[in-house]
Amino acid sequence: MIDHFFHPNGVAIIGATDNPAKGGYHILRNTLAGYKGRVYPVNPRYEEIQGTRCYPNVESIPEDFDLAIYFIPAKFLPDTIKACAKKGVKAIIIESAGFSEVGEEGRLLQRESVELARSLGIRLWGPNCMGLLDGHSRNVFSFMYSDKWMTLMKPGGVSLVVQSGMLSAGFLMMILESGGMGIAKVCSIGNKCDVDETELLEYLIADEETGVIGLYLESIIDGRKFLELARSTSKPIIVLKAGRSEEGAKAAMSHTASLSGVAAVYEGAFRQAGIVQVYDVHELMDFARGFSKVPPCAVDAGTAVITFSGGAGIVTSDLLSDRGVKLADLGEQTISALKEVFPPWMKPTHPVDVWPSVELNGLEPVYAKSIEAVMKDPGVDSIIVQSIAWELASPGYLVEAGKLQRKYQKPIVLWQIGAMDIAEKYRVAAEDAGIPVFTEISRCVGFVAGAKEHSRKKAGTGVS
Amino acid sequence: MIDHFFHPNGVAIIGATDNPAKGGYHILRNTLAGYKGRVYPVNPRYEEIQGTRCYPNVESIPEDFDLAIYFIPAKFLPDTIKACAKKGVKAIIIESAGFSEVGEEGRLLQRESVELARSLGIRLWGPNCMGLLDGHSRNVFSFMYSDKWMTLMKPGGVSLVVQSGMLSAGFLMMILESGGMGIAKVCSIGNKCDVDETELLEYLIADEETGVIGLYLESIIDGRKFLELARSTSKPIIVLKAGRSEEGAKAAMSHTASLSGVAAVYEGAFRQAGIVQVYDVHELMDFARGFSKVPPCAVDAGTAVITFSGGAGIVTSDLLSDRGVKLADLGEQTISALKEVFPPWMKPTHPVDVWPSVELNGLEPVYAKSIEAVMKDPGVDSIIVQSIAWELASPGYLVEAGKLQRKYQKPIVLWQIGAMDIAEKYRVAAEDAGIPVFTEISRCVGFVAGAKEHSRKKAGTGVS
Repeated sequence: MIDHFFHPNGVAIIGATDNPAKGGYHILRNTLAGYKGRVYPVNPRYEEIQGTRCYPNVESIPEDFDLAIYFIPAKFLPDTIKACAKKGVKAIIIESAGFSEVGEEGRLLQRESVELARSLGIRLWGPNCMGLLDGHSRNVFSFMYSDKWMTLMKPGGVSLVVQSGMLSAGFLMMILESGGMGIAKVCSIGNKCDVDETELLEYLIADEETGVIGLYLESIIDGRKFLELARSTSKPIIVLKAGRSEEGAKAAMSHTASLSGVAAVYEGAFRQAGIVQVYDVHELMDFARGFSKVPPCAVDAGTAVITFSGGAGIVTSDLLSDRGVKLADLGEQTISALKEVFPPWMKPTHPVDVWPSVELNGLEPVYAKSIEAVMKDPGVDSIIVQSIAWELASPGYLVEAGKLQRKYQKPIVLWQIGAMDIAEKYRVAAEDAGIPVFTEISRCVGFVAGAKEHSRKKAGTGVS
Repeated sequence: MIDHFFHPNGVAIIGATDNPAKGGYHILRNTLAGYKGRVYPVNPRYEEIQGTRCYPNVESIPEDFDLAIYFIPAKFLPDTIKACAKKGVKAIIIESAGFSEVGEEGRLLQRESVELARSLGIRLWGPNCMGLLDGHSRNVFSFMYSDKWMTLMKPGGVSLVVQSGMLSAGFLMMILESGGMGIAKVCSIGNKCDVDETELLEYLIADEETGVIGLYLESIIDGRKFLELARSTSKPIIVLKAGRSEEGAKAAMSHTASLSGVAAVYEGAFRQAGIVQVYDVHELMDFARGFSKVPPCAVDAGTAVITFSGGAGIVTSDLLSDRGVKLADLGEQTISALKEVFPPWMKPTHPVDVWPSVELNGLEPVYAKSIEAVMKDPGVDSIIVQSIAWELASPGYLVEAGKLQRKYQKPIVLWQIGAMDIAEKYRVAAEDAGIPVFTEISRCVGFVAGAKEHSRKKAGTGVS
């Protein structure tokens, strides 16, 4: 039913304009850039916009069509819904503000619109939202002001559902620009007067293009159904639930007029449903990106750490311990394999500090050998690699490591230091090889903890 | 006494070479680039290195001198100490490895060297370390392979003491490259066989160039003295104590052979001494940078949040609540001032979501007005600003905000989103204006929590 939003047969843009300072300009521009079907700009002031015939109103559009994008003042919505119904419209994305978030009058208007649409068999998306993006079809039904998505958006497995407007606009561009994340569907649902997180979760679980689902939510309308859906799937689901605290809940109330629940209740229920909970916005994106790359753990054992710095290894051990993640006990065979590249005076211990070996035998062969050795260890289920982006070496060993991680089904994550330009090359090589890169050790540890939890769920439920 | 390490009269470099693949080349190169006094390379294989007369051994140096930098195999250290004593040497930085960190033999050699040096009135720094950097004198007594410090290192108030080698080499360059941090002194103390964290803490507390002290430590040799010193000063002290967990402590033992203490004991003692504890490596650097910029809080009230995103505001409220930081109650006067730039339909609430106002009145005037309004509120002691780096606006309002923060003595931190190139301009403008920028909301919140704790200590002890 909500597939019409993603794959409509014909789209009208109500409030299209050729003034680039207005959102209606960008909705049309973005739609024309990616959508393959018929597009009908609606605005009585133009005959044509951006080379496309413009219609004075919905009624004058010559054919029936599936989707309308609404970007005119709120008060015209009920009449527009009626006009759309006559054109066979199945779905309306309302990107305008001025509804429940602005007070009692807006609340009444929103409720009236939902009831009207429901009686006419039309689904509503929004209002007060940024619409949606599809990384595969390249349908971008959003007023995003930047053309950057046209080059930055790559198809991939990450789908996002975001309740707040700005977190999916400028923020999304920034995330795409920083690279490494392939997009399935991005859904900005605003006041979610009709289509909500639970219906989208169900849709995305069934969606073949979606491998990972990340959600920023201020409330969950049908908590029971949401958790049931989460339990039913092996796709990783990552949730940033805002309004956990009393202060946060108060702020959420004034923002989208949605009532948030009690923190502790959510925490426990999320864990039981195998949802990975996160607490910050880049963290949500980091985890979504990470889960779209690494395989689930084939075994449930310990995490191996390979580092260039004894100090970083100790910090990593502490942070693993904080998160209750077991540091792997390396087997005798692994220690023997490491000895082959270690200096004679140095006994391999864990975390594996490879720096003296690197000085002796070079960065690439030592990292390659060490990663392979711990990868083969039955006591290892995941690996945190800490490396230096080094002008004199090549990131080739990361490509090999990416292959090993898929062969052995043991996730690898990378934390690296190095001069910016070189570090960027290493980062891209790692991400392309399926190894997520995080800027802080604690983020590597947090992600590994989440990946292990998710793998346990997958093993436990037997879902594939 | 340890001032000779920082301001020596004459420096010998034992193990200088003209092979750029060796550390001895870079110690000489770095010393010649910054140090203003006499430099004596020592190596029997050269008459001259890098345009500087080279001596076959310490004995043949024609004058007395204060400091020797040691970078030849470990076993020659006792004889070198004896030779140095004859030249009036006061201090030796031992950057070679091969001491207590490699086993029993190295441990004995290290102990023998310390006893010998002590009997001859010579202080030892290291071994197994990167030496030191001084951002003001530009003395760089370190084998760092990169010349980048020559352009990147700016004088400033941040001093660092780092027990682990790599965390202060490639990592330090990366930190300098990412900008915003002015350096007083960076001390890499390795096995700290003689000069240790406590003596350096005392030195840096007294050092006029040092405003903030950040320490990465795997152990604290004289805990009582260390805490006493911390209590005695109003300079912010930030500690990343590695080896908090059992696993981490084990790793620390094998790394620098130092015994770590019990986590809970450190936590409590640090808090009582007004030390700000951090748990990750970039966090240590972020906090050091932040503390070098913001003023202490003049009052102890609540934190104000100004945001472009209702969602980000809620996440911030949650994270403040997690850290036990009070969200400010904004006064009537502040609400009235905000109303002047808010749309008529929107009542200002807290967190202050300025986006609708920005759409109405423009980004710069709205942020400027809002920051000023909350700054004047007696219920506000600190401000988290969340903004968009926007091509169409200028970061001028951040410069004004930086002035206000000093006038009212209320720290401001910034979290921003935006396209990379523009975001970088805003970041530099903010940092130059004395407003630290952090990439994640939780980092802003954590820093504000630390700054408030430190301000309370300062107010409580009356130290200035």
